Amino acid sequence: MAIKVYGVAMSSNVVRVIAALNEKGLDYELVPVNLAAGEHKKPEFLALNPFGQIPAFEDGDVKIFESRAISRYVATAYKSTGDDLLPAKTPAEVAALECWLEVEPQHISEPISKVLFELQIKPLLSMTTDPATVEAESEKLGKVLDVYEARLSESKYLAGDAFTLADLNLMPYVYNLSLSSKAELMTSRPHFKKWWDEVSARPAWQKTAASIKL
Amino acid sequence: MAIKVYGVAMSSNVVRVIAALNEKGLDYELVPVNLAAGEHKKPEFLALNPFGQIPAFEDGDVKIFESRAISRYVATAYKSTGDDLLPAKTPAEVAALECWLEVEPQHISEPISKVLFELQIKPLLSMTTDPATVEAESEKLGKVLDVYEARLSESKYLAGDAFTLADLNLMPYVYNLSLSSKAELMTSRPHFKKWWDEVSARPAWQKTAASIKL
Ligand SMILES: N[C@@H](CCC(=O)N[C@@H](CS)C(=O)NCC(=O)O)C(=O)O
Ligand SMILES: N[C@@H](CCC(=O)N[C@@H](CS)C(=O)NCC(=O)O)C(=O)O
Repeated sequence: MAIKVYGVAMSSNVVRVIAALNEKGLDYELVPVNLAAGEHKKPEFLALNPFGQIPAFEDGDVKIFESRAISRYVATAYKSTGDDLLPAKTPAEVAALECWLEVEPQHISEPISKVLFELQIKPLLSMTTDPATVEAESEKLGKVLDVYEARLSESKYLAGDAFTLADLNLMPYVYNLSLSSKAELMTSRPHFKKWWDEVSARPAWQKTAASIKL
Repeated sequence: MAIKVYGVAMSSNVVRVIAALNEKGLDYELVPVNLAAGEHKKPEFLALNPFGQIPAFEDGDVKIFESRAISRYVATAYKSTGDDLLPAKTPAEVAALECWLEVEPQHISEPISKVLFELQIKPLLSMTTDPATVEAESEKLGKVLDVYEARLSESKYLAGDAFTLADLNLMPYVYNLSLSSKAELMTSRPHFKKWWDEVSARPAWQKTAASIKL
């Protein structure tokens, strides 16, 4: 049965789901949700996600929301299709994978979203970028990127030697940052830049990037 | 080798880890970290958690930080010890488990933490509770609890018929709310209250609650 992703390929949270599907080589239908018209707060959509946010997801009878839950669902339910995105086996591997899966939502998500909102979303909405917010959030983001830089100086990928969901979940934000006027936050950190060059060259990501509408 | 939890049993994030260890019947050492003295920003602690926050965790050679990563590590590395906290097998079970694991950090964590900070932490720090913040955050929290209430009206536990990590990860916050002047936010929602009565009666949680220092 068909996989349906409800949302628009401009939202990093939607792109996270698309990236997981492309890694697994799965076909899906992107069902547009008109946020400007408030479609995400209508009963039909709330039945898919009671919090009224995109993405929502259907895989045949299975319904699920929350982008990171969906990407992990895809990685688990299709574990043996394509590369295994959750390959941790030993306790040390499990610890590294779970830890770096959590650093993204707990530490980098907020400052990077705020920077991108100012630089990329506000202009689209005819709102005025606030330079003070850009600077304050860029400083916070830089400190978090320092922790990533230290990690990637000792580990090829975030969770170890293999590309995993911990890398994938972060990529939509980093892609947007790479296109923004604050791209130097990542290009100035050599191990982070090397990681990005590596992960963004993956064929699945190339396919994902081609579908992003900014 | 010994399990060490770095932190104080007042923080909900530390209690989340202790709750997982008690469910598995594992012994651990709670290593106190003096936040007032800034011990969590010293090099020895930053080697355990580069973000300088409690909890940090060691299991022999394995080091890990982030409370939800640690509780999932415990549930995974000790899967066959005690009850399985990650029992999802079918795609539908995986979807429900991953979804409800994510709702806690993405939706309830912020408003419930803010309410508890005003009502429980500020008085401890000789700061003044701001009634306007309590009301505004309680209103947001109530809306999220409505979604939980709807879920628990159709499902015994958050992820389905069995107690899982999705229930456990939420319990430290709910315990604190139950002791606060805003306890009616949960007791007024009958399915949520029934769930809480059930999960908080678990012997492992009783042991956890006895170790909480508020
Ligand atoms: N934690 C959610 C966040 C989803 C989210 O914030 N979606 C935004 C678009 S990027 C949205 O739907 N906003 C509309 C709203 O919140 O009303 C996830 O990761 O899926
Ligand atoms: N996302 C982290 C949050 C940890 C956290 O916020 N810890 C607090 C105590 S509850 C802390 O260490 N605060 C001191 C600080 O941030 O400087 C987790 O879940 O482990």
